[in-house]
Parts: sequence; C-alpha cells; structure tokens
Amino acid sequence: MSDLENSIATIIEVFHKYSEKEGDKHKLKKSELRDLINSELSNFLGHIKDQATIDSLMESLDADGDSECDFQEFMTFITMVTICCHEFFEHHEDE
Amino acid sequence: MSDLENSIATIIEVFHKYSEKEGDKHKLKKSELRDLINSELSNFLGHIKDQATIDSLMESLDADGDSECDFQEFMTFITMVTICCHEFFEHHEDE
Repeated sequence: MSDLENSIATIIEVFHKYSEKEGDKHKLKKSELRDLINSELSNFLGHIKDQATIDSLMESLDADGDSECDFQEFMTFITMVTICCHEFFEHHEDE
Repeated sequence: MSDLENSIATIIEVFHKYSEKEGDKHKLKKSELRDLINSELSNFLGHIKDQATIDSLMESLDADGDSECDFQEFMTFITMVTICCHEFFEHHEDE
C-alpha cells in the first residue's frame, strides 16, 4: 500500500481501537473521544482536561443527535483537524 | 508524532506533492488529480484510464466551480474514500 493508503487505514484502525472499548463498538462515546484525542492527537490539539470542552466538541460533531460519534462524524472531525493543520503549515510557509 | 498525526501530515504532503506540479500550486488540476489517484490510491480505487471518469470526479468534487480541486475539496474526496474503505472492512468483519 502507498503512504496515503496506509494513512487512510490508520484513521480507520485508530477509530476502532477506541470505539471498541465500551458500549457500542462502532461509535465513540465522550470518554473514548477524549482518550483518543489525548493519546493520539495531543501534539496537534493539546490535552482535553475539562468536561465542558469534550461536551462542546461532541455536541458539534454529533450530527444525528445520539450523543456518540460514529465513523462519518469522526471523519468530519479528522477533516477539520487536517484543514487546520494544512492552513497552519501554509501560513508558516508564506512567512 | 502519533500514527494518526503522521497520517494527517501524509495526507497534506501527498496533496502538495501533486498540486505543486503545474499551474496553481495550491490546487489539483485534473491531470494532477488523476496522477495522484493512479500513483497513490490504485490499491483502493484502481487506475483511472478514461477522461470521462476524471471529468465526472472533478465535477463532483469542485464545490466552488473553478475546475480545480483545492485542499478542502480534496478532503471531501479523502473522506469519501475513507468512509467507503471503512464500510468495506466492516462488511467483511461481519461475514
């Protein structure tokens, strides 16, 4: 597989590593989303320490209103993070 | 960086590797999008050989109507591919 294909496979694997921990195996509950961010995205996003932040993030991602984050909703999140990283790098490149 | 962070960085790097080749360095033209798919996503998507397929793909991705694919539009494409891969793996897992 190419680097890009491996990256796509990694996104799927990381989602399932956390979604499988508790409750619905195909969805991230708030604590699973928080653990995923704190363990897998802390260099990009820092650590989420307070409940209000994770409450607010879940509310913004939870398009179908079931209070959990399914794979499509997770991809919205990954897209947001990737677009922010891209803008950050592009801005630094222009300086 | 974590595997997930490296995956996000790879998506950005691969986009730029192709967008920088010709014309607007921040956008993929049709030939760049085709080369990217044929070189970096052929295990997932096969090869695009005919012009009609790349015409139709660009039309569906080109949200702002400039006949090129910017990074946000590329992320829509990566999200579509990733959700399809996820559904494929999930289906196979259930069998």
